[in-house]
Amino acid sequence: MKLTIERAALLKALGHVQSVVERRNTIPILSNVLLSAEREKVSFAATDLDMEILDDTVAQVDVPGQITAPAHTLYEIVRKLPEGADVSLSFQGDDPRLQVAAGRSKFNLPVLPAGDFPVMSSEGLSAPFAIEAADLARLIDKTRFAISTEETRYYLNGLYLHTVVENGEAKLRAVATDGHRLALAEMPAPEGAAGAPGVIVPRKTIQEARRLLEDASGSIDLQVSPQKVRLDFGSAALTSKVIDGAFPDYMRVIPRDNAKIMLVDNVLFAQAVDRVATISAEKSRSVKLAIEPGRMTLTVRNMEAGQAVEEVEIDYDGDSFEIGFNARYLLDVTGQIGGEIAEFRFADPASPTLVVDPTDAGVRYVLMPLRV
Amino acid sequence: MKLTIERAALLKALGHVQSVVERRNTIPILSNVLLSAEREKVSFAATDLDMEILDDTVAQVDVPGQITAPAHTLYEIVRKLPEGADVSLSFQGDDPRLQVAAGRSKFNLPVLPAGDFPVMSSEGLSAPFAIEAADLARLIDKTRFAISTEETRYYLNGLYLHTVVENGEAKLRAVATDGHRLALAEMPAPEGAAGAPGVIVPRKTIQEARRLLEDASGSIDLQVSPQKVRLDFGSAALTSKVIDGAFPDYMRVIPRDNAKIMLVDNVLFAQAVDRVATISAEKSRSVKLAIEPGRMTLTVRNMEAGQAVEEVEIDYDGDSFEIGFNARYLLDVTGQIGGEIAEFRFADPASPTLVVDPTDAGVRYVLMPLRV
Repeated sequence: MKLTIERAALLKALGHVQSVVERRNTIPILSNVLLSAEREKVSFAATDLDMEILDDTVAQVDVPGQITAPAHTLYEIVRKLPEGADVSLSFQGDDPRLQVAAGRSKFNLPVLPAGDFPVMSSEGLSAPFAIEAADLARLIDKTRFAISTEETRYYLNGLYLHTVVENGEAKLRAVATDGHRLALAEMPAPEGAAGAPGVIVPRKTIQEARRLLEDASGSIDLQVSPQKVRLDFGSAALTSKVIDGAFPDYMRVIPRDNAKIMLVDNVLFAQAVDRVATISAEKSRSVKLAIEPGRMTLTVRNMEAGQAVEEVEIDYDGDSFEIGFNARYLLDVTGQIGGEIAEFRFADPASPTLVVDPTDAGVRYVLMPLRV
Repeated sequence: MKLTIERAALLKALGHVQSVVERRNTIPILSNVLLSAEREKVSFAATDLDMEILDDTVAQVDVPGQITAPAHTLYEIVRKLPEGADVSLSFQGDDPRLQVAAGRSKFNLPVLPAGDFPVMSSEGLSAPFAIEAADLARLIDKTRFAISTEETRYYLNGLYLHTVVENGEAKLRAVATDGHRLALAEMPAPEGAAGAPGVIVPRKTIQEARRLLEDASGSIDLQVSPQKVRLDFGSAALTSKVIDGAFPDYMRVIPRDNAKIMLVDNVLFAQAVDRVATISAEKSRSVKLAIEPGRMTLTVRNMEAGQAVEEVEIDYDGDSFEIGFNARYLLDVTGQIGGEIAEFRFADPASPTLVVDPTDAGVRYVLMPLRV
């Protein structure tokens, strides 16, 4: 194998794939990136056995071939090369190492055979449907914060991506929950999406997909099977196993008839929550909201750290009541409200509260109250 | 005690003192900041028993008095208050807590009596001498990286600040070493500095002093005693114990007659070192420099990670030789060279190497070679 490639193109391609590679690996070849040079093109692949990212880019290929080399080391070297450098990658002759050369720099890296590199099959994937990169990024951004990190409830450790038909309209919907709060974002189902199986996409896959979306524009192709998901970004592609479990029937948790409607300035409310939370104990982070017509009073009491009280104007004219929430969860939700106003729909202090964004009918948040 | 103060002034004063406070304290009052309100002025003090920072600022004082309250919590609250807010601090009446109020926010923090707050005496300190803030910042910046972190050699865990007379000229000099490298920076001794005892200023004190220097301009007052150092920045003042030990006779380590002079472009050299170091093993980080007329070849060999070779043009016309250094130490020194050129003065591959900055006669660096 022998090829020459511009540093920026190489850095971008390696940047796309290398973050899949774990820092510590018991299987040595998982630390490596697979380089495959064909005519005028070189492709890169990295995997952690659950997920694989491929990226290809143009290069001047003198001798086609394949080899694997340490992903992080190669990325670091290329990152440190001067801008505009032409980088030559070669694996040939008697040298059992990959040579990386640019200007007066020359590196020799240990390799492992390309034949040993685990390749993920894309068997069983559905026909692709196209989705705008910005739309997919929105579904992820509005919901990923609620993904559970509790390993015992493994079926909540991902984003549930699926299609539904509601009021005769097909929708593509993303839902995440950790049992304490739930986030839902949806959009009209792209053409060809309806009928695709629902999949729970693992947290790490969501994170890598979001990173690749940064460099994507226009539409990307999405394919799913009951076992896998594949995103094709053009030059980069991500294939990942999905979580083998059943996502709970989340619609039962989303309240429909909460009658106590409160409107609040989203930024002022978030700032007040953030300030009173300074006093809250590390673990519970509980904030009490006392809601009465025209006014909400936020209170945190902590035996050790003291007490905090804030008042915020609200638009509310029902009965007065008190309800408690985890400050972190309130801040996560206010952080996703795009408009000026957050709309809270309460039932009672022991039942789930719905939070909606009056400027975006496609998102819904549910918060379980804390006892205060 | 009752006073009103502008948020920005309060934040700045608390910011100056609060970073001295350790996150975990076995003595509860060390988590607190001492507030002392006199007429039209409030002062803040924080300490870790080895170091104390004071800061005072104007305030509208209605009732003078003193109290202590949790430093980090108070700082966080003030930081989160809206810009331009007027903050009222009061400790009075029946409430055994400090009340912090601004707009519609109200906080009550637990307090401890001001009388229990440990105050550091400034006994025995010499008459102050004035030094330009920028000059002191330079002495610190050029040398602090070489301060040892090895606790067994506690007398190297600080910056040795002292005056010397060399060639009939009095100089104020800062020296740091960890036994593997040494950094020296000096300046003409400020008036009144000559004769002051040399002090080893602890790493944490240097760090806090450097932070306070960010906000300082013009000159600051410096006082030393064999046990203490005091820096007066105007509104802020830092008093610290110094390390009770003897700094080694560092002049014996600084080579004077190294005859092999090599000049190299500082940035190109640093970039080459950084690149080849990618391959070096975490611990040793050893780089071999092969020096010959006109050219230096940098090599790193690592059984696991491969090999790296770089060439850099140099100005050198002596005998060829090879010498090894810790890459991290080379990068620390090149990071402090202000001019385009770094000048290396070698003796032989087993003896200390001197590095100087041709544009700044007031700094010297010594590096111990590694065996390669």
